[in-house]
Amino acid sequence: MSVVLDNFFKPRSVAVIGASRNPAKVGHVILKNLIDGGFRGRVFPINPEASSILGLSAYDSVLKIPEIIDLAIIAVPSELVLKVVNECAKKKILDVLIITSGFGEVGNVKLEQQLRELLDKNKMRCIGVNCLGVFDAYHKFDTLFLPRYRLSRPKPGGISFVCQSGAIGSAILDIAAASGHTFSKFISYGNATQIDESDLLDYLYSDPTTKVICLYIEGIKNGEKFYETLKKVAAIKPVIVLKGGLTPAGQQATISHTGSLAGDKAVFYGVLEQCGAIRADSLEEMFHVAALIEKDVHFNSDKIQIITNGGGYGIISTDAISSSKHIKMAELTPQTISEIKKLSPATMNVGNPLDLLGDATTERYRWALDSCLNDKNVGGILLVVLYQTPLITTEIVEVISEAHRKYPKPIIVVSTGGEFTELLSRSLMERGLPVFYFPTEAITALDKVVEYQLRTPKRAKVFNKEEIKENSVAVTNSKKSVKGKYKTLKKKK
Amino acid sequence: MSVVLDNFFKPRSVAVIGASRNPAKVGHVILKNLIDGGFRGRVFPINPEASSILGLSAYDSVLKIPEIIDLAIIAVPSELVLKVVNECAKKKILDVLIITSGFGEVGNVKLEQQLRELLDKNKMRCIGVNCLGVFDAYHKFDTLFLPRYRLSRPKPGGISFVCQSGAIGSAILDIAAASGHTFSKFISYGNATQIDESDLLDYLYSDPTTKVICLYIEGIKNGEKFYETLKKVAAIKPVIVLKGGLTPAGQQATISHTGSLAGDKAVFYGVLEQCGAIRADSLEEMFHVAALIEKDVHFNSDKIQIITNGGGYGIISTDAISSSKHIKMAELTPQTISEIKKLSPATMNVGNPLDLLGDATTERYRWALDSCLNDKNVGGILLVVLYQTPLITTEIVEVISEAHRKYPKPIIVVSTGGEFTELLSRSLMERGLPVFYFPTEAITALDKVVEYQLRTPKRAKVFNKEEIKENSVAVTNSKKSVKGKYKTLKKKK
Repeated sequence: MSVVLDNFFKPRSVAVIGASRNPAKVGHVILKNLIDGGFRGRVFPINPEASSILGLSAYDSVLKIPEIIDLAIIAVPSELVLKVVNECAKKKILDVLIITSGFGEVGNVKLEQQLRELLDKNKMRCIGVNCLGVFDAYHKFDTLFLPRYRLSRPKPGGISFVCQSGAIGSAILDIAAASGHTFSKFISYGNATQIDESDLLDYLYSDPTTKVICLYIEGIKNGEKFYETLKKVAAIKPVIVLKGGLTPAGQQATISHTGSLAGDKAVFYGVLEQCGAIRADSLEEMFHVAALIEKDVHFNSDKIQIITNGGGYGIISTDAISSSKHIKMAELTPQTISEIKKLSPATMNVGNPLDLLGDATTERYRWALDSCLNDKNVGGILLVVLYQTPLITTEIVEVISEAHRKYPKPIIVVSTGGEFTELLSRSLMERGLPVFYFPTEAITALDKVVEYQLRTPKRAKVFNKEEIKENSVAVTNSKKSVKGKYKTLKKKK
Repeated sequence: MSVVLDNFFKPRSVAVIGASRNPAKVGHVILKNLIDGGFRGRVFPINPEASSILGLSAYDSVLKIPEIIDLAIIAVPSELVLKVVNECAKKKILDVLIITSGFGEVGNVKLEQQLRELLDKNKMRCIGVNCLGVFDAYHKFDTLFLPRYRLSRPKPGGISFVCQSGAIGSAILDIAAASGHTFSKFISYGNATQIDESDLLDYLYSDPTTKVICLYIEGIKNGEKFYETLKKVAAIKPVIVLKGGLTPAGQQATISHTGSLAGDKAVFYGVLEQCGAIRADSLEEMFHVAALIEKDVHFNSDKIQIITNGGGYGIISTDAISSSKHIKMAELTPQTISEIKKLSPATMNVGNPLDLLGDATTERYRWALDSCLNDKNVGGILLVVLYQTPLITTEIVEVISEAHRKYPKPIIVVSTGGEFTELLSRSLMERGLPVFYFPTEAITALDKVVEYQLRTPKRAKVFNKEEIKENSVAVTNSKKSVKGKYKTLKKKK
């Protein structure tokens, strides 16, 4: 049974408890970002010592607000949290997002337990404590207490990122936005006092704007729940998981961060594999894999054709493909080869990689793309475009976008460079193409995507109840052997 | 015996043979970049059909130039190359840089052989054919035929990059410049018709502005020469090597690119290990390792203290350090711990990682750096600074730079983010600190640097003839076992 968490992402009305007139205070930044971010719901600052903040009327308490409130954002000192949650309960605000820290993560376990009991008693739902809260790109709802000039917010898209650590989340959101990646939701859930990673996964499972889920976790409190949820969700939507605290020293560090117990590495990897989730080994990798899926890279064949204007990049890409687990080099048909030979200069070798040479023109890219994408032996293209060479015009963006629209086969672009390159790369990303800086990172990420797609061939691209049911059954009945390992995780609790 | 190649990097006078008035021609772009780049030597365009190009008097042939010419840059069609090289010989221009392609790499082996014989007969030295040529940041000498608006040129620094592939070289140069990395020389040597990677290594060995050498190679024609040179050079200066064409498919691709034979992977890795070179497994890694060395990161102890304002980054960094081969987590002394406890808020856990929390101020970073750098158990700092949080002021740049100046221990910075972050990161790089986007990439690179430093403890930081001799002998006498493998490589020729 899914938890409906809509009020956390598209509330009609919000109270900001602890809103402040002091720009250095968290409660000020949250209120300012809600206003500046373009959120269209009603916002009520709560502060007993102010009559108005940032042009909005302020109230002593939520009890004084003369309207129904969908969500309360709580940013008061930890010792006041129980009091204001009680007031929210009285006001029938059942959804609360608690930013405040100073609970279990600093040894204040008792206070966190009292809070949990209070929430449960009143049937309230809570994201937090000790978190950044949420960002919803579609509804422009943004509780992150980080100034907008320091942290760019991404445009609407298909990636949702659930992150136990606020710092990782905000840093990734920032770099992702700057690189042109697009997001649906970002959720920093901190201590998971009540709503945990499993509840959030479950919610995103049926969220229509979420195409791929990224999950950074440090520890799992309820292993069984996580296992069942991940199995259900990953059968339908790709879930990429990065786990912090996999080494003994890292595990030690998680305890003081979010008060989590980290668990054994082998067991955790086994759970991910059995559930059909994608394992990321670093933040940058999580990000690269997500970008490929968000841009709908889907291979019907594992055969890749490399097209490049840098011979060395062709070689490095070939090495990377040959070292991958699931991707193979395409072999062009004799027809394609003779077609390309007719068009190409005599000095060009026609094969895979197809090196268009340092004097490659935009036009040369056009016919190379057409010829290769029409070849039945080609499942997709790794397209290296190095914009440093003078004969490539900026129209290359149109040529690549056109091929992307015209053919159902994926095109993955690799371009390394500074400002000029970044400009054209962002432009291609906006047109729906995945773009990477280096061949190796593109191929490593692609290998994981292809592995996932081979494993879950029936994955529905669009949410469909019948298909969920069918897939869930299929996953439950397979790979029983790993489940033995997973039992260990549950016992550890 | 070293080859003196000074004329290729700081010539007093240059002839550009094939200079053109047509902005789309290579010979035009080279001439324009020489002028725009600020090169202070004299430049003579050679073009039989023009009297002046870009404001400079043009000549029919080098034979008509009334001055001594140190270097000829040749950018004429391949069928004219022998003729103009002959003219250079008559004019006593002994150094030629040949950009022209269309030789061995497209099967025109005979023409390349004729050229080689002509060069040898006249005792001429040649970089090329089929290359981009050179870039020297100190002498602003720039033969790259890539427009400056497409390819940013880096500022002067300690990295020299020898690259068989022009495309890889230019793309890396561009992204490196944009990220704030600094270079001494870049050399694209193409087919290595005469001067090869070994000659270039040998030259950079005694180049005072080169601190670290990056080498991208596809194939080695003279294995024995390469082995002896690399052994000599790597004993004194760090050499980072990335080899293209290590898989069978990649090897196949190298043949059409620079006409090279790629050789066996295991043998090649053995050679690198025996010579004490650093092996890079991707372009991005080569780059990260070079940046650490260029910024003089040198550990006297392998114990690292993590300081962070993002708990999750502390955990991921801990995991990365625990998974590394050579880096260990530092353990702060009881004195340091009690000193930090006096200064820190009650909610802060004092240990490693040292999590300064999401409300970390610039001042908190100041005393954390001071305390940890004064601790005898700490060999260096991994400093995570996430600028998204509002209480960090831009003065943090000064605080970090000051600690960097004050203490001899290395500080490696990790900052993830968009524009605001990049601004501050570039500023730190200009002040001599290495900065990375992600913890994992920093630790992976650092692990390779520490491995190198453990292996070559006597490495002279400044070039010193006695030390070279001493080190060369030490290396020759060690690790004989790998040499057996290397014999295989020589036989393969």
